Amino acid sequence: MRIVITGGFGFLGRQVAQALLERRTLCGRTVERLVLADLFVPEDSPLAADPLVEVVQGDLRERLDAAFAEPVDVLIHLASAVSAECEADFDLGMAANLDTTRAVLEAARAQHAAGGPPVRLVFSSSVAVYGSDAALPLPPVVSESTLPTPRSSYGTQKRVCEQLVAEYTRRGFLDGRVARLMTVSVRPGKPNAAASGFLSGIVREPLAGLPAVCPVSPDLRVALASPRRTVEGILRIAAAERGSGPGLLDGDLPVNLPALTVTVAEMLDTLRRVAGDAVADLVTVAPDPAVEAIVGSWPAAFDNARAASLGLTADEDFESVVRAYVEDHPAAVAAGALPTAGPVGA
Amino acid sequence: MRIVITGGFGFLGRQVAQALLERRTLCGRTVERLVLADLFVPEDSPLAADPLVEVVQGDLRERLDAAFAEPVDVLIHLASAVSAECEADFDLGMAANLDTTRAVLEAARAQHAAGGPPVRLVFSSSVAVYGSDAALPLPPVVSESTLPTPRSSYGTQKRVCEQLVAEYTRRGFLDGRVARLMTVSVRPGKPNAAASGFLSGIVREPLAGLPAVCPVSPDLRVALASPRRTVEGILRIAAAERGSGPGLLDGDLPVNLPALTVTVAEMLDTLRRVAGDAVADLVTVAPDPAVEAIVGSWPAAFDNARAASLGLTADEDFESVVRAYVEDHPAAVAAGALPTAGPVGA
Repeated sequence: MRIVITGGFGFLGRQVAQALLERRTLCGRTVERLVLADLFVPEDSPLAADPLVEVVQGDLRERLDAAFAEPVDVLIHLASAVSAECEADFDLGMAANLDTTRAVLEAARAQHAAGGPPVRLVFSSSVAVYGSDAALPLPPVVSESTLPTPRSSYGTQKRVCEQLVAEYTRRGFLDGRVARLMTVSVRPGKPNAAASGFLSGIVREPLAGLPAVCPVSPDLRVALASPRRTVEGILRIAAAERGSGPGLLDGDLPVNLPALTVTVAEMLDTLRRVAGDAVADLVTVAPDPAVEAIVGSWPAAFDNARAASLGLTADEDFESVVRAYVEDHPAAVAAGALPTAGPVGA
Repeated sequence: MRIVITGGFGFLGRQVAQALLERRTLCGRTVERLVLADLFVPEDSPLAADPLVEVVQGDLRERLDAAFAEPVDVLIHLASAVSAECEADFDLGMAANLDTTRAVLEAARAQHAAGGPPVRLVFSSSVAVYGSDAALPLPPVVSESTLPTPRSSYGTQKRVCEQLVAEYTRRGFLDGRVARLMTVSVRPGKPNAAASGFLSGIVREPLAGLPAVCPVSPDLRVALASPRRTVEGILRIAAAERGSGPGLLDGDLPVNLPALTVTVAEMLDTLRRVAGDAVADLVTVAPDPAVEAIVGSWPAAFDNARAASLGLTADEDFESVVRAYVEDHPAAVAAGALPTAGPVGA
């Protein structure tokens, strides 16, 4: 089968690609071609050198012809402008998130209409679809049946695309499914423009020996998932057959990936316990009302039943998340910050 | 103030325009100009001859410059492709409902960005946003906090636009509000391509001495509102100030207009009681699975509390709805079908 990953050289795209190259199968079929589409492709990427990998570089809307040059069996649509970008530049977010996704859906529809296979399309949405409305506060525990009332442009764009994916699926244009990603922590690499970026930064930067700012009150509760669990969730949703029962994808509702609920204070305490005072003291708490307003509007506790029916579970605790980060990215951890031995998240 | 009504020469547009010309005020301000924008303008329309009325004819996306040639204070966006059209032609629905609404929102945003007044924009949505998902059946009673899972292209397009209206409002681009219209019955005039059209046709056609087909099982329960109540709802939502409390519009959720729940059998019985056997016998019941699938997926019972807080109530019963139709459209009723005296819906 030929699989396309948009945003294929982004943080999650690379990890999903790497997992597929290791497994070599999806839905019981052999992965014969893995197309990584992205605006930017790093020069020295080992992924790009893999014989199974085909690189499609450039603005996605202008490169869909290349991505669909041969039949696409599965498309994992990860490309997206992030939350703070969309809040800062409304038009950029509408173009990058809504218009580009529509173009992707239309390309998939055109393939099937021309007699090609229906594309199994996984759309990566976000917990940011949820928010509190003046007339409808968020319930203490959120599930897929909770009405999303986004309080950000990013959340609105994601929510709109979710519904278009469900509609294209209902019409038989493609086989769409939606994975709602939790805030991923700990993300490796450099800070990005996501409002939630600090939820990785307050661990990643101090572990690298760098200072970090925590822009929210430490008593804020957040819902997180590790990169490992997030990648596993995306692939499980891609692989699931439709139907009612364990392991099957029932109906057209999105799937909220399972979330670990922690307070920011618990995250900072975990860092102190695992990596020591010198590392933890690199974090300065300086609440920023703009960030608090966005991140605080997202739900912090989830009913994970729909994900559990697909065999997905949340990270055990934040310590396992931190230890998995250190294991996966040893070069990003300063010598003095190496944690003591302990359990590593699966 | 200058008010624009899109779809201004459609059935509801004409009635909203007529009501505004009679009241001459909205939100406590004098109506100085009423712009009726529509693809088709009837040649002999008395509305078009009114000195307060300005006509903008043509495809709405191409005529927004004319609609916004002078500052728009209130825009009532009624123009829409109807449900059966959107199901038959996906691209037509996406263009007429989603893309055109986006263009309207952008025109309003541009006015305010250029220093003009924020547009108070009323978007007419539909009960068709609701449907049953395999994993989430509709509850027996639906409210604005029920998650819409549309089972039609029309419903999806309306739902997507609702969320864009909320987002443009949150960003301060305009002051949007959403009226979710119930199936309007009894609509005057000719049948249209709406899947719900028969819910007017089974009364209107026999009253005119014409045969009519009822394409659903008579035990189907439906939620209806008369044209009078629908127009009142649209204008009340347009006039409402924002805030928490009676008469105020709280939050960015849509407002479901109040619904009268009846079975199709009760509708037919009412017709028989009011207009006699000869009229009622003009209806032939011949269920059509395609129509039953669409109309049967819509909810039939509503919690009307949000509308009630704005002072809106459902029609008293279906007999008052039929009698109001006869009173408002005497020329459309055949002599032999004139009902006996009785209460007329307010």
